[in-house]
Amino acid sequence: MIDLNADLGESFGAWRMGDDAAMLPLVTSANIACGFHAGDPLTLRRTVAAAAELGVRIGAHVSYRDLVGFGRRFIDLPADELTADVLYQLGALAGMCRVAGTELAFVKPHGALYNAIVSHHGQASAVVEAIIAFDPGLPVLGLPGSTFLTLAAEAGLRPVSEAFADRGYRADGTLVPRREPGAVLSDPDLIAARVLRLVVEGALTAADGTELQLSADSICVHGDSPDAVAVARAIRTRLTAHGVVCAPFA
Amino acid sequence: MIDLNADLGESFGAWRMGDDAAMLPLVTSANIACGFHAGDPLTLRRTVAAAAELGVRIGAHVSYRDLVGFGRRFIDLPADELTADVLYQLGALAGMCRVAGTELAFVKPHGALYNAIVSHHGQASAVVEAIIAFDPGLPVLGLPGSTFLTLAAEAGLRPVSEAFADRGYRADGTLVPRREPGAVLSDPDLIAARVLRLVVEGALTAADGTELQLSADSICVHGDSPDAVAVARAIRTRLTAHGVVCAPFA
Amino acid sequence: MIDLNADLGESFGAWRMGDDAAMLPLVTSANIACGFHAGDPLTLRRTVAAAAELGVRIGAHVSYRDLVGFGRRFIDLPADELTADVLYQLGALAGMCRVAGTELAFVKPHGALYNAIVSHHGQASAVVEAIIAFDPGLPVLGLPGSTFLTLAAEAGLRPVSEAFADRGYRADGTLVPRREPGAVLSDPDLIAARVLRLVVEGALTAADGTELQLSADSICVHGDSPDAVAVARAIRTRLTAHGVVCAPFA
Amino acid sequence: MIDLNADLGESFGAWRMGDDAAMLPLVTSANIACGFHAGDPLTLRRTVAAAAELGVRIGAHVSYRDLVGFGRRFIDLPADELTADVLYQLGALAGMCRVAGTELAFVKPHGALYNAIVSHHGQASAVVEAIIAFDPGLPVLGLPGSTFLTLAAEAGLRPVSEAFADRGYRADGTLVPRREPGAVLSDPDLIAARVLRLVVEGALTAADGTELQLSADSICVHGDSPDAVAVARAIRTRLTAHGVVCAPFA
Repeated sequence: MIDLNADLGESFGAWRMGDDAAMLPLVTSANIACGFHAGDPLTLRRTVAAAAELGVRIGAHVSYRDLVGFGRRFIDLPADELTADVLYQLGALAGMCRVAGTELAFVKPHGALYNAIVSHHGQASAVVEAIIAFDPGLPVLGLPGSTFLTLAAEAGLRPVSEAFADRGYRADGTLVPRREPGAVLSDPDLIAARVLRLVVEGALTAADGTELQLSADSICVHGDSPDAVAVARAIRTRLTAHGVVCAPFA
Repeated sequence: MIDLNADLGESFGAWRMGDDAAMLPLVTSANIACGFHAGDPLTLRRTVAAAAELGVRIGAHVSYRDLVGFGRRFIDLPADELTADVLYQLGALAGMCRVAGTELAFVKPHGALYNAIVSHHGQASAVVEAIIAFDPGLPVLGLPGSTFLTLAAEAGLRPVSEAFADRGYRADGTLVPRREPGAVLSDPDLIAARVLRLVVEGALTAADGTELQLSADSICVHGDSPDAVAVARAIRTRLTAHGVVCAPFA
Repeated sequence: MIDLNADLGESFGAWRMGDDAAMLPLVTSANIACGFHAGDPLTLRRTVAAAAELGVRIGAHVSYRDLVGFGRRFIDLPADELTADVLYQLGALAGMCRVAGTELAFVKPHGALYNAIVSHHGQASAVVEAIIAFDPGLPVLGLPGSTFLTLAAEAGLRPVSEAFADRGYRADGTLVPRREPGAVLSDPDLIAARVLRLVVEGALTAADGTELQLSADSICVHGDSPDAVAVARAIRTRLTAHGVVCAPFA
Repeated sequence: MIDLNADLGESFGAWRMGDDAAMLPLVTSANIACGFHAGDPLTLRRTVAAAAELGVRIGAHVSYRDLVGFGRRFIDLPADELTADVLYQLGALAGMCRVAGTELAFVKPHGALYNAIVSHHGQASAVVEAIIAFDPGLPVLGLPGSTFLTLAAEAGLRPVSEAFADRGYRADGTLVPRREPGAVLSDPDLIAARVLRLVVEGALTAADGTELQLSADSICVHGDSPDAVAVARAIRTRLTAHGVVCAPFA
């Protein structure tokens, strides 16, 4: 059994991003934007309603406040401001879940915030503080071994480790930075085979050929690449064909 | 017994608005900005916490999304967008209440939205729809006789009518528009006397001298004028001296 | 000879809108967003540079400040604020022209502002005041017979009337509102034939069958529909085949 | 002779910041916000007009795009985006100067951007590139010894070094960080005496008692502290009384 998650609800007003309608039936967990890097309120409401209808679990994809940068630029803000920003986003998305007759089920930081709290202790701690204050029962998705997941676990939150379907890994288990060759994979079949091996064997071949042992509770199938839907479909089909059940993490 | 409400939490980042610390002990209900016309998340968190600590009831001061215009400019947006905008704000503020150990207790539209839904059926209906979907137990503050309060009551929400302490009234019970003479009163003693008479006798002298019968469940003592604190203190002192108990509407 | 104009530079950060690279070689005037409804600074810089390189004339597509609404929602703001908003946008885009070695050549209001100043005297006047103050030599594009073009002409600006290639017209020469049937045409051949007749004969068949006389100095070939490029190509091809020269208005 | 500069135009919509009307007659150069950290278009227009009327020289106080953080938070954005952001702001403010019958006269980065480019080579270079592209005749204000002023000088821009009237210095000539004791001075007389000595002797006592040699072409008298006007007045009075002429840097 494995969970498949994707970034959804990332349109904003007249601007479209991703094909949420096609992606939703292929995943089991939806990281839904909360309005700070993407996601106007009407988009959020509709995305949450569509996810709820399909039984897809809803997570808050919290971010720095940065529409023009799509949350992809590190912002060096004070811990109390970051905690409040995360709280605000959790409340807004939880409200959309409530009116859709469902509940917020997890939290996954987005973009530059996700990357920063792999190692930034102050910001990782600020995000954890917000989630503990809002609902200590919310699991958190993050990079295995990150400061964020470590602090979250210490604070009593349930850490859920994830692997990235279409990203290259280095021998130490970190991702190949986006600017380097091998950072992003694009062949749906190759990606699907890679995910299957990861789920079944807990193994992955790094960019330099090293064999990695990697254990993940959830696989992130990206939501904003042009081939995102084809990739997600290939993964889901391959997993199902080999008897792997796709279901939300417990 | 009467409820006193004021607009609070209207700072934004480095910009201050009003003296919330001085105002909070003087009122019984706080209309707290939700981030769309004012109120960054840290300001909201602190304002909600301060209100909760003093036992002041917390309402969502929902607005058009318009920071530069402070929510004071009519925006002609589609009903489904307005409903979603209100839902987003309700969720965000309710989340702040939750982490402060309290609950969102009412809704009061702000500025141009407040004025628009005195008569704009489509927008009034969109706001009511959001509140019904979010929590049909939330009372709503508005202008007596407004389309908003009428539709809210029809939908099963509890309408709470309010009067404005420092605004002039016309003979028909509507407010003197801000650009006309007599729109805004400033003498704290005069305002306090006026409020006392309104609460005790249900009567008010309009700008043209006409005697009005006006029944209000709550008195709005404005939060952003330079004399706001002095005015609120004068009102509270005068009411208490005459045996009127200031308490949240039931 | 006729001018063909299109809305360009309407991406924002990670969000794409339209295919500017394909559209630019097909038009003679580019209405470039100025950051208020669309167009982050890097997009503006690149779009202006690309237009300058192809010799396409650059106009400021000024708008209400409304990213989430893409400038398509009427905002009731004071005249002095609107004038300042337009000035700010004109300066920003003129600066981008300057660094691209070219000059700002005209102004065309966008979306809800365009529609409002067909009849809203105060806002039309505020826009005209900004352009006169910034550069009285700038021509302005607008709807024939609009208050905006009338006031612009009275103030000494050169009015340039435009027709819409893919919009239905009513018998009185105004556009069929977007929510009514017949508002938007989509068949490229039909649209091209319609534009040819308009340019050559100054005639157009309204939605109800009435024959209209319509004189336009420029034809707007829309930039944000899925078929925008195909439509623009069909128009350009048809016009050229019939000996009409596409060139910027004099 | 010495130049006195202050940050002005930092209000935003309904929120006020500083007392520009009182500050303007006391300074010789105005760093005017450009809308990215503060300064709505109407505030910019009025501030530029008031400065022009008093013969105060106008500089563009360019910033990261960060209203909620008032430009005080480092943002790690790509160089081409930063260059475009600066260009956009330069154009917008230059346009306001144009309609006020004056010209943009210099550039001073604001807040976190100012601090970042003391040492961040990529961002310093991006800002320099924007200014060179926009107008290589524009002088730039910055910290003596900063990467920004060094790169600016190498690129052919005129570097103008400034000292801060109300900030403590460390023995190495850098500022005492805001969170440490001695970072900000508040006594107007003491500050005025310090500025006089700096201007006349080129000397300053650091927080640890060390005597510093410091040469500055301009003194920044801060615009957003509660005592800003009193401090600026004390400085100006003291300088004048000792025969120092306050005038824009040549």
